[in-house]
Amino acid sequence: MEEQMTEQTTEQLEVPKERERALNTVFVGKKGTMGYVLAVVTQFNNGAPEVTVKARGKLISRAVDVVEIVRHRFMPNSKVNNIQISTEELTSEDGSKNKVSAIEIKIQK
Amino acid sequence: MEEQMTEQTTEQLEVPKERERALNTVFVGKKGTMGYVLAVVTQFNNGAPEVTVKARGKLISRAVDVVEIVRHRFMPNSKVNNIQISTEELTSEDGSKNKVSAIEIKIQK
Repeated sequence: MEEQMTEQTTEQLEVPKERERALNTVFVGKKGTMGYVLAVVTQFNNGAPEVTVKARGKLISRAVDVVEIVRHRFMPNSKVNNIQISTEELTSEDGSKNKVSAIEIKIQK
Repeated sequence: MEEQMTEQTTEQLEVPKERERALNTVFVGKKGTMGYVLAVVTQFNNGAPEVTVKARGKLISRAVDVVEIVRHRFMPNSKVNNIQISTEELTSEDGSKNKVSAIEIKIQK
């Protein structure tokens, strides 16, 4: 079991599979807004030409806050390149399916 | 007082001033999501070629839900034309200013 976990971790470093680890992407969760702002700014400072901010459900509003704070307070020359909304289907543990809205905002340096 | 209210109503019918009454615009508030879905569909049925869904703050996620439900469940041929995000400054009664994120989503029939 432990071996398997180690293997998975290595694999993720080479070929990121999960959202949170995807290249130049910040997935907004339940932590404080400023943490995600910092994550976006850090990715730009590390050389990313474009950063994608993603969120689902009620966290969509926080994703918009993050992008607005980045471009108004920290990176006045950056601009929103593209915004897409979609519906994702989540399967919960009991097998029931729930639809949830999602947003994807691309910011360019 | 009553006369004044009647006058205001007439004026709003001719020249809509408030957001909620703006032409082909649905401003998403705290009521149930389906009410706003119905409002959008009704505007399309009344001949609007494009409807704009607007929201601020935490209600941004509800606006995305509204648009997703409209285009997936009620109007499968409609498409999202344009999404814009912005920051609005609200002045509260005590004079303090608060910034709040806003979204504007245009759907085309």
